[in-house]
Amino acid sequence: MRTVDGHTGIGVLEREDCVRLLGADVIGRIAVVEGGAPIVFPVNYALDGETVIFRTAPGTKLSAGPRAKACFEVDGFDRAAMTGWSVAAVGRLEELDEYASEAFDRARALAITPWAGPGRDHWMRLTPTRITGRYVGKKP
Amino acid sequence: MRTVDGHTGIGVLEREDCVRLLGADVIGRIAVVEGGAPIVFPVNYALDGETVIFRTAPGTKLSAGPRAKACFEVDGFDRAAMTGWSVAAVGRLEELDEYASEAFDRARALAITPWAGPGRDHWMRLTPTRITGRYVGKKP
Repeated sequence: MRTVDGHTGIGVLEREDCVRLLGADVIGRIAVVEGGAPIVFPVNYALDGETVIFRTAPGTKLSAGPRAKACFEVDGFDRAAMTGWSVAAVGRLEELDEYASEAFDRARALAITPWAGPGRDHWMRLTPTRITGRYVGKKP
Repeated sequence: MRTVDGHTGIGVLEREDCVRLLGADVIGRIAVVEGGAPIVFPVNYALDGETVIFRTAPGTKLSAGPRAKACFEVDGFDRAAMTGWSVAAVGRLEELDEYASEAFDRARALAITPWAGPGRDHWMRLTPTRITGRYVGKKP
């Protein structure tokens, strides 16, 4: 099925396409709100079902607070063709408790190596309440 | 100068490097806050000095309200090498008034063709109050 907004030319991706694209990359961007302003960080991640898992050091992504609202985004562009796609997963951030057993064990099994090196000992989870995707040009 | 946080291995980019990288790409991501939650959209853009200019159709990016706080981000990754960089410009979004003369004329001269096609008749400006950049691996 191809759903394209006739006015804007932007195609809407089905949820299964969004999840496939989320699962096909290893780095995306997490946005949280701090002091009323959005901030965006790249994070390398892995997908556990539809849950985004990443590791972080103590800092802004954590200090946004327990169960902070967050948006995780992945995308791909063809600059020459002026086409591309973007998938956004919206939900709340949670730190995985080392003793919370099953979810933590599954996250560890994903073996995410932080690009930024050691010190990223906090495992974070974003369980999406909404996953949306859009594209311009060829459907990804 | 190479500034690297010894603990995290993350390098900090000077402002001039950030502005160079902002000026070298044509597509980035804008994050705004809507109902207390961050949302992220890709936008194709051009740089006017240190000001990010993009076009949009009526919708979320506009409905975030006049002078909404926003974060604009560009990045580049080498997934095989597990390295990359990210630059974020934080400030407030403003719609450029067609009759506001000089800024609007300069924006039009940038000739930004919206990838998503017609209907993107609103010109938006993000004048950063803060520009920061980080990298892992080779300095971009």
